[in-house]
Amino acid sequence: MGQLVRAEFSTERALLDRFATVRKVTEELTLPLLAEDFLVSATEETSPVKWHLAHTTWFFEVFLLRRLRTDYVPVKAEYHYLFNSYYRREGPFLPHSKRNVLSRPTTGEIFVYRQTVTERVLEELGSLSEAGFQDSLGVLELGLNHEQQHQELLLMDLKRNFYENPLRPCYRLNHSHGEHRPRPPVWHHLPSGLIEVGVAKDSGEFAFDNERDRHRQWVESCMLSAHLVTNLEFLEFIDAGGYANPLLWSSDGWDFKSQEKWEAPLYWERDQRQWSCFTFSGMVPLDLSAPVVHVSFYEAAAFARWRGARLPTEFEWELAATQRPITGTFLGDGDLDPAPPRLSDDLFSQIHGTVWEWTQSAYRPYPRFEEHRQGLGEYNEKFTVNQFVVRGGSSLTPRSHYRPTYRNFFYPHMRWQFAGIRLAKDLV
Amino acid sequence: MGQLVRAEFSTERALLDRFATVRKVTEELTLPLLAEDFLVSATEETSPVKWHLAHTTWFFEVFLLRRLRTDYVPVKAEYHYLFNSYYRREGPFLPHSKRNVLSRPTTGEIFVYRQTVTERVLEELGSLSEAGFQDSLGVLELGLNHEQQHQELLLMDLKRNFYENPLRPCYRLNHSHGEHRPRPPVWHHLPSGLIEVGVAKDSGEFAFDNERDRHRQWVESCMLSAHLVTNLEFLEFIDAGGYANPLLWSSDGWDFKSQEKWEAPLYWERDQRQWSCFTFSGMVPLDLSAPVVHVSFYEAAAFARWRGARLPTEFEWELAATQRPITGTFLGDGDLDPAPPRLSDDLFSQIHGTVWEWTQSAYRPYPRFEEHRQGLGEYNEKFTVNQFVVRGGSSLTPRSHYRPTYRNFFYPHMRWQFAGIRLAKDLV
Amino acid sequence: MGQLVRAEFSTERALLDRFATVRKVTEELTLPLLAEDFLVSATEETSPVKWHLAHTTWFFEVFLLRRLRTDYVPVKAEYHYLFNSYYRREGPFLPHSKRNVLSRPTTGEIFVYRQTVTERVLEELGSLSEAGFQDSLGVLELGLNHEQQHQELLLMDLKRNFYENPLRPCYRLNHSHGEHRPRPPVWHHLPSGLIEVGVAKDSGEFAFDNERDRHRQWVESCMLSAHLVTNLEFLEFIDAGGYANPLLWSSDGWDFKSQEKWEAPLYWERDQRQWSCFTFSGMVPLDLSAPVVHVSFYEAAAFARWRGARLPTEFEWELAATQRPITGTFLGDGDLDPAPPRLSDDLFSQIHGTVWEWTQSAYRPYPRFEEHRQGLGEYNEKFTVNQFVVRGGSSLTPRSHYRPTYRNFFYPHMRWQFAGIRLAKDLV
Amino acid sequence: MGQLVRAEFSTERALLDRFATVRKVTEELTLPLLAEDFLVSATEETSPVKWHLAHTTWFFEVFLLRRLRTDYVPVKAEYHYLFNSYYRREGPFLPHSKRNVLSRPTTGEIFVYRQTVTERVLEELGSLSEAGFQDSLGVLELGLNHEQQHQELLLMDLKRNFYENPLRPCYRLNHSHGEHRPRPPVWHHLPSGLIEVGVAKDSGEFAFDNERDRHRQWVESCMLSAHLVTNLEFLEFIDAGGYANPLLWSSDGWDFKSQEKWEAPLYWERDQRQWSCFTFSGMVPLDLSAPVVHVSFYEAAAFARWRGARLPTEFEWELAATQRPITGTFLGDGDLDPAPPRLSDDLFSQIHGTVWEWTQSAYRPYPRFEEHRQGLGEYNEKFTVNQFVVRGGSSLTPRSHYRPTYRNFFYPHMRWQFAGIRLAKDLV
Repeated sequence: MGQLVRAEFSTERALLDRFATVRKVTEELTLPLLAEDFLVSATEETSPVKWHLAHTTWFFEVFLLRRLRTDYVPVKAEYHYLFNSYYRREGPFLPHSKRNVLSRPTTGEIFVYRQTVTERVLEELGSLSEAGFQDSLGVLELGLNHEQQHQELLLMDLKRNFYENPLRPCYRLNHSHGEHRPRPPVWHHLPSGLIEVGVAKDSGEFAFDNERDRHRQWVESCMLSAHLVTNLEFLEFIDAGGYANPLLWSSDGWDFKSQEKWEAPLYWERDQRQWSCFTFSGMVPLDLSAPVVHVSFYEAAAFARWRGARLPTEFEWELAATQRPITGTFLGDGDLDPAPPRLSDDLFSQIHGTVWEWTQSAYRPYPRFEEHRQGLGEYNEKFTVNQFVVRGGSSLTPRSHYRPTYRNFFYPHMRWQFAGIRLAKDLV
Repeated sequence: MGQLVRAEFSTERALLDRFATVRKVTEELTLPLLAEDFLVSATEETSPVKWHLAHTTWFFEVFLLRRLRTDYVPVKAEYHYLFNSYYRREGPFLPHSKRNVLSRPTTGEIFVYRQTVTERVLEELGSLSEAGFQDSLGVLELGLNHEQQHQELLLMDLKRNFYENPLRPCYRLNHSHGEHRPRPPVWHHLPSGLIEVGVAKDSGEFAFDNERDRHRQWVESCMLSAHLVTNLEFLEFIDAGGYANPLLWSSDGWDFKSQEKWEAPLYWERDQRQWSCFTFSGMVPLDLSAPVVHVSFYEAAAFARWRGARLPTEFEWELAATQRPITGTFLGDGDLDPAPPRLSDDLFSQIHGTVWEWTQSAYRPYPRFEEHRQGLGEYNEKFTVNQFVVRGGSSLTPRSHYRPTYRNFFYPHMRWQFAGIRLAKDLV
Repeated sequence: MGQLVRAEFSTERALLDRFATVRKVTEELTLPLLAEDFLVSATEETSPVKWHLAHTTWFFEVFLLRRLRTDYVPVKAEYHYLFNSYYRREGPFLPHSKRNVLSRPTTGEIFVYRQTVTERVLEELGSLSEAGFQDSLGVLELGLNHEQQHQELLLMDLKRNFYENPLRPCYRLNHSHGEHRPRPPVWHHLPSGLIEVGVAKDSGEFAFDNERDRHRQWVESCMLSAHLVTNLEFLEFIDAGGYANPLLWSSDGWDFKSQEKWEAPLYWERDQRQWSCFTFSGMVPLDLSAPVVHVSFYEAAAFARWRGARLPTEFEWELAATQRPITGTFLGDGDLDPAPPRLSDDLFSQIHGTVWEWTQSAYRPYPRFEEHRQGLGEYNEKFTVNQFVVRGGSSLTPRSHYRPTYRNFFYPHMRWQFAGIRLAKDLV
Repeated sequence: MGQLVRAEFSTERALLDRFATVRKVTEELTLPLLAEDFLVSATEETSPVKWHLAHTTWFFEVFLLRRLRTDYVPVKAEYHYLFNSYYRREGPFLPHSKRNVLSRPTTGEIFVYRQTVTERVLEELGSLSEAGFQDSLGVLELGLNHEQQHQELLLMDLKRNFYENPLRPCYRLNHSHGEHRPRPPVWHHLPSGLIEVGVAKDSGEFAFDNERDRHRQWVESCMLSAHLVTNLEFLEFIDAGGYANPLLWSSDGWDFKSQEKWEAPLYWERDQRQWSCFTFSGMVPLDLSAPVVHVSFYEAAAFARWRGARLPTEFEWELAATQRPITGTFLGDGDLDPAPPRLSDDLFSQIHGTVWEWTQSAYRPYPRFEEHRQGLGEYNEKFTVNQFVVRGGSSLTPRSHYRPTYRNFFYPHMRWQFAGIRLAKDLV
């Protein structure tokens, strides 16, 4: 990734172009929506589309524009409370559970808010000296990446919220993947050794604080599966009574599953004849050769145990992934819901893109971790408890937002993100 | 009321006209709304405006059109699940808590649904013989009254949902009430006696099942206040520590209040200098001479106890109210939020309209109660536990929907309805 | 009851004897218990036996001894917080949910506490002049009746708590009721009329504040069942799908039942061959001819509806009950769990004793209600919301504690009290 | 520890002696209790003393005796349900929340149960050939260690449960620690390097499955504090507003703290003049020079952040601890509640014993983890989600039960265990 990205970032102009593009992409994602769709949020994890549109704008206003001009006047003072997500340093904010009461400001007003802030950023930064620009570059890059994260969130949330509507609306028409034959399981060996992971503090490339500092990790010899676990394989787990056997589950996982009455991944439904699942194109028959997705860590770990395997650590995963070119399906590459691997897929099939892969690593800061500066310390670090790392990006992740060192994280019970399973095994 | 109503209902034509009018009024209530406002529902008690529009339509479809033609084809089969409120006889329904996920069908589609059903009802009933019409008259009248109830609910819910939005949107511009001087408390005596209450089964007038059968009640001698309790009086209760004195409250009331941290009626807010409250015109300074509203039964009873009084029974109330002409403020009369009494107000000021008045009567069926026929048994009776009767209508109640025998009911903790307080006293 | 009681109360000596007896009876109820049984409390409704022993003692200490001597020194200052049940006027108290943490004071210490206070009361009152005694008489009588209420509560709670223990301990050996043949349903007619109910303020007899003031009620003509509903009849309701038919239930009742997954009365269990139920003698086969007990108001009302009947009002019930002599099974008469009626039973079988009978009357204060004086205002009145009246006493109620005007009350979902069903019907 | 333990275990006789001793120690811990104390359990984390006594007995019955003899007849069949903690493989079990309803079996019966099983184990194992004994040795050792874990739990729970009683009972009289002067903070350097941690699979020594397999870890260079954080230091954190500053806390930690309204460690109470805390000797003035204890991971991490430091990883901790002799305060050494370090304390003061030390390591299985055999797979592994590792033992841990590789674990919100803080720092 390095060279390409460095070129892209080499001039201020290029970065401002990228800013304008990212802002536009977010808006384009909402083109298939009807006016009424912008407000819905049906679960405690999700947010309405209009809130995502506004929050990503607020981010630039507060962390960039307000820093550039001490006399900066916010577009609307009230938005500060409404569109702060969780930055306590910025004062109180609207509780997450109330984001779906915001019929006002209207979607139209929010688009105006977006445009105003986008233009103001271009104006302010365009008129800065190179030195001044250097100073703002970190926040601009972080803001861009923040917005790209919300592109993925916006789509994740939309799918989840559409699913709650018994009419099961479509985001776009289905497209067929063609035929795919499942391939036999293949394991590749990872030798033990002292490896380096993460991104160096002085690397000059953009990375989140949680990817830093680059440091050594000893990795024990192990095996890693060449393929993602498929729907077919997961169905075998279900049919073998996997959801009814407590010995496969962690204690917390079993309790949560039992309480929620899970019997399959999120979005799966069974009628007498067959399984189907909810996609961006509505309910469709389950594609058995596609990678399983929308499983929690609890389910991923239970599946692995059932197969006599385990989930990889994030370091094993990074060791394998950094050896492969960044090909694969990302946002804009056609499929929104995960599709089976193409024939051309290589050594570790679909390791980049398609689905985030659960690791067995709890999400904790790296050695010599330092939080983002400029009032952005709450971006990542305060979430380093009780969550697990997923790696590899998904079909909703913008490609230019992705790096193999990227550490995303979710609570082990969460399922609405596009997360799947790649197995690992100890060598005993 | 009797004669006027009988005249209005005397021909089928008149009833069909009234049907068309009621349907139109509901739609006109939504004129001040923006597209985004139709979907919001922020509390477990409220529903979105668009759901009200659809549910009242579904009611006519299921209970009237489907009965008229055995080959009736519903406008959309899916709507049966979405827009059934609580009629278990009609099968499973969308949980109340999910009504705010229905971005689809769009508001536009729901207006089309309304129009289709309205026209179909006019068509079908217009072509019936008089005998056939007689048969459907009961359901048509019930459907009309049901829709009028939802006109009040729609506005109650809208106020509540707007309030949750920190921007505090306005439904319409404020209008001032002019000056009003609070009047000294006056009590009128009600003599003891055996009275008749409710509506006779064979009366021929429309009434809900819960108003029937007309029957005798012995009422003990007591005093009833000439006026509704004002905001000024309620403020005295607050200032006297009423919310902090457990000896004024029922045990359940105290626990609920403490848990919810109530310190004033719903919609009241205090800044350093003064009290204001949320209205259909946004936040306005508290009008001290207006009747207090948005208090729960718990608060009403605690206030009464503090004043050495009590709430009236619903029979005492009916005894007083049936002696007064039906004047007062109803939906369409100008004020949406309760205003102080006009000078012309009589013996029992504002006893009809303005605010529902809490009674001390638990909501229970009358002797010889018989539930509505034609699959509508669930309309009222299943709610006769744990609720209290309010009487008298409010400024959101359509005048043609009101009778002095009208029994409305709410749980004792509810505050979003337009309910206030009239005091009574034993003669000891 | 009047004459007997008046005789009993006619001299101070008799009252003090009765006090000593009641105190002793409470203690004798605990004779079958093992040391470990005194502390258990398994539900939010119940309290440990040792807490009942202490609380009834605290009552005399606070409301009687402390009033008699301004220099009264409590047995232990700490007990004031521990053993106050809900008298907020007396300051903060141990939350109900924590009563089962009181391993200390030990049961032994509590028995010493009881004895100390019992003796002190006898001493203090024994040395009072007749005038002084007259002054304390009201509180003494109330304290006695309070302790008798707790005799019933202690046994109700014990049964409930034993039931939670999978070993299902016995309180005492079973005794057989002999054979009973169910009798055909018989209805007796109650004519309409203006009746008097309750106890006059100046009656001179002991009664709770909630039984006062005696007042008139108009009762409509109706039918009242001669018998209590039997287990056999209730089983027919179960077998007919009563628990699965929402149209029989109130809305709150259906929701509560569904959430709690009720399929039978409390304490009933079914194995493949038969129903059994938990009693003071452990699990025993269900006696089909015995009155059904441990049903909630929700179940009682659903059963009545299924039978085309309803529950009586408390006034209908009182009208019938005051015409019958007070025979029947009370505490000390042999059966603790309800037994079938004896052949000698009369017009309204088992109307006194055996089981409390659910009425359809919400528990509300009577006209001219005045709460108990002397700091005891919280005794009854603050519970007059959301509860329903039961009438008639049970096999756990001390006979000397009972009057036909006695109004007991429970929330409609409660089942651990000994409450059953007598049906009523409108005459249409 | 190695040699001593090996000696102790070298003959079967020695192991059986140790078994008899451990069983006796458990019972001796209950000597200060009154009969009523055995049943109390006031929180969802704790269990009653009598349940601990029975559960540790059940463990030997099910996993040892039943394996030795296929015709083994349990002491009481009902105990299988009552005293299984969480082994789903063994069938359903009494929910944790109901352990405090078991007034029966009585404490006396449980002591008989203990004795019966203890004798039976000695008998059965005493009569085995050396080969047969070898076979049972693993389970016997695990059972011993399991019982020792419950010795600590029994005391932790007892302290917690006594605390809930407003009388604040004492377990034993206080003993004074003498004077201690807080020492200046000292940091020791840990060099980076590839270290080995854990216990080898073939080591022959007893260790839990979660300590295996011994494996390599790369540790980055860092500083580790010579001392545990004291009450004085933690008080400074409180006085500096540590509990009110969200920027110091993880997101989950802040939410949990806010909901629980924490303002100090568990057991701390402030009156106007000073802080005191609850101990096994009741409420005592806070000893400022003693190590802070009863803090959650959330509080430990917030404190560390406030000090510009962090918690150590479990590997850093093990690296430091394995270099120090196992001295320090364990169960039986006098202090139950943590006392200040003695003057003789060395390089890393109190690193063994006194308090468990929170690490920043999420509790996860080691490479090549294999669960315990013989039906005991649920012992540890199913808890490897959402918990954090604590290390070092406490003043309630039996010394013979402890190893520096010992990994104990708790949820990050838990505070009733004896856990404190040792700080670490990156070298930047």
